[in-house]
Amino acid sequence: MRTIHVNLGERSYPIYIAPGLLDDPAWIAHLRGRQVMIVTNTTVGPLYQARLEGALARHLAGCEVRSVALPDGEEYKTLAVMNDIVTALLQNRFDRGCTLLALGGGVVGDIAGFAAACYQRGVDYLQFPTTLLAQVDSAVGGKTAVNHELGKNMIGSFHQPRAVVADTATLRTLPEREFRAGLSEVIKYGLIRDAEFFDWLEGNLEALLRRDDDALVHAISRSCRNKAEVVAADEREAGGRALLNLGHTFGHAIETGLGYGAWLHGEAVAAGMAMAADLSHRLGWLGRTELERIRDLLRRASLPAAAPSSLDAASLRELMAVDKKIQTGRLRLVLLRRIGEAAVTSDFEAPALMATLRDCRAATAAPAT
Amino acid sequence: MRTIHVNLGERSYPIYIAPGLLDDPAWIAHLRGRQVMIVTNTTVGPLYQARLEGALARHLAGCEVRSVALPDGEEYKTLAVMNDIVTALLQNRFDRGCTLLALGGGVVGDIAGFAAACYQRGVDYLQFPTTLLAQVDSAVGGKTAVNHELGKNMIGSFHQPRAVVADTATLRTLPEREFRAGLSEVIKYGLIRDAEFFDWLEGNLEALLRRDDDALVHAISRSCRNKAEVVAADEREAGGRALLNLGHTFGHAIETGLGYGAWLHGEAVAAGMAMAADLSHRLGWLGRTELERIRDLLRRASLPAAAPSSLDAASLRELMAVDKKIQTGRLRLVLLRRIGEAAVTSDFEAPALMATLRDCRAATAAPAT
Repeated sequence: MRTIHVNLGERSYPIYIAPGLLDDPAWIAHLRGRQVMIVTNTTVGPLYQARLEGALARHLAGCEVRSVALPDGEEYKTLAVMNDIVTALLQNRFDRGCTLLALGGGVVGDIAGFAAACYQRGVDYLQFPTTLLAQVDSAVGGKTAVNHELGKNMIGSFHQPRAVVADTATLRTLPEREFRAGLSEVIKYGLIRDAEFFDWLEGNLEALLRRDDDALVHAISRSCRNKAEVVAADEREAGGRALLNLGHTFGHAIETGLGYGAWLHGEAVAAGMAMAADLSHRLGWLGRTELERIRDLLRRASLPAAAPSSLDAASLRELMAVDKKIQTGRLRLVLLRRIGEAAVTSDFEAPALMATLRDCRAATAAPAT
Repeated sequence: MRTIHVNLGERSYPIYIAPGLLDDPAWIAHLRGRQVMIVTNTTVGPLYQARLEGALARHLAGCEVRSVALPDGEEYKTLAVMNDIVTALLQNRFDRGCTLLALGGGVVGDIAGFAAACYQRGVDYLQFPTTLLAQVDSAVGGKTAVNHELGKNMIGSFHQPRAVVADTATLRTLPEREFRAGLSEVIKYGLIRDAEFFDWLEGNLEALLRRDDDALVHAISRSCRNKAEVVAADEREAGGRALLNLGHTFGHAIETGLGYGAWLHGEAVAAGMAMAADLSHRLGWLGRTELERIRDLLRRASLPAAAPSSLDAASLRELMAVDKKIQTGRLRLVLLRRIGEAAVTSDFEAPALMATLRDCRAATAAPAT
């Protein structure tokens, strides 16, 4: 078992990574009370909930375990569904000493984490992410939220879990497309701050795609270590944490333009990272060779390396303008100085951005050698 | 102008207390951005909103001021109404640098504070409390919440304001009954930790009831100083902050038993404090003379010093059992060692509690000389 520590003072916590952890007593020590509510969804619950219940029954004497299964899908990441979790907690008379266990992907983690942040002004929770995206990204760092009809993740909280338990065996049931979309965020860590990891990914992508246990544990650990370091330095996203948004402003524009759900988040981020790399190259930050290495790795993972041709440059530019990362009217983007080093900047000319938006579309996505 | 500092490290903030502060530029310095959303209700807004807007127009160049008026009443302290505030923020494209101004009583402050806690995972807010209860209690300390159909304040957050601005002139429009209910929490500070203040209240109650400016500023400042010290020592209610709940477990039982709204919160707390004093006396903690001083002061403020006769002891006991302060099945109460010193304890015999519940009812509320 690998353990990564997220250092946040009194809010510090471990991330455990290994196959088979759902059954393992390692995480039991992070339960401070005896009232436990498993929050899962109707897809993941039938597969894995009994494993958590079994571990609790074996290792936590006298615990009171209840569960609530949310409907599966981003469209249920709402205040109303969060309220349903609170209803379950109150109906079972759970007090401030209770703990929520979030078992599922990013949607379950975000909404259960937000319920934990708000219930009686804050109770404990543990994350049991069951998708690659959640294991390397959304379950780590304490960002919780639900969507508003006018914007994603607009209502939420920073609320750190007591532990993150990434059982890599749960990835065996993950649909192939979702698995590959998760790789997008793995590749992101190499790009923004870990050139050595990017090299490793180039050499080990096939093992990852086979879902080899050792490769998975290494890739997830390294991703979590990178995220943990970024989060420790900037818990509430006042500065450096913004680097984690590489590709996301482009990606959100694609997701919104296509309608949510047409592309997976990781797919849109992959295209967005390729576009950020393209703009970085135009600004003279990133060499041609590095740009091609990035595009190649994304393509080998069967991820898009450009925006869909159905969205024109003007539409994308308009959609980028409403992204919430804009603070003062000026568009700020995460760009790459080189593979392994990113920076947030608004120091680029509009024509360069428009050229990227115009040229990085599926029709021109083939390597420009 | 009096200023009380709430010392919470990087979350520290001032409380300003004086008549006329809505027009005063003192609080403008606490606005970090130019987007300002006034959150008020349909009763308070027409009286005072223009004053805030005028101050902003005079003292904050280029600010963008919007407002949202909530329906007036505890029954609107819901997630749905909080969501309406978020809708207004998003429709106006307010970003993470925006500030909410909560203008009204405890309901407006709690819900606007919770909206500020959640909007884009947390934005700034200032409290402009316009009731005595809010000025001495709910606006100070960062507790925000909305109600759930199964319990009050069950969904919320600790989120400190950037400043609290208590314009004592706004109390002139407060209905007499609400004003007296607010005095209940003022008296509470004397009881739990400030015997000298309790003496002062005995000597100056008539000036307060006349709403004399000097008396008000003194009483509110002293109350806020007490609350600030308690909050600074225990921001998230892990320990000492629980002393602020003197009378509240009894009071909540009365409020629930009568149906919310029959008695004002401060009225129920007044009866609850008298009951806590009675139980403290039965345990030998509090002398007969002190018990009578407490009852006398409450009666002089036209506040109840006993539970309503319509609620019998068994019903009250049952209602107290579901109060959220119960952590481990054992009822814990805030009791008085003497005037000016309180303690949280579960060290009392059931018969003593039942005797208090049986005897402290309106029919026996006359001084037991």
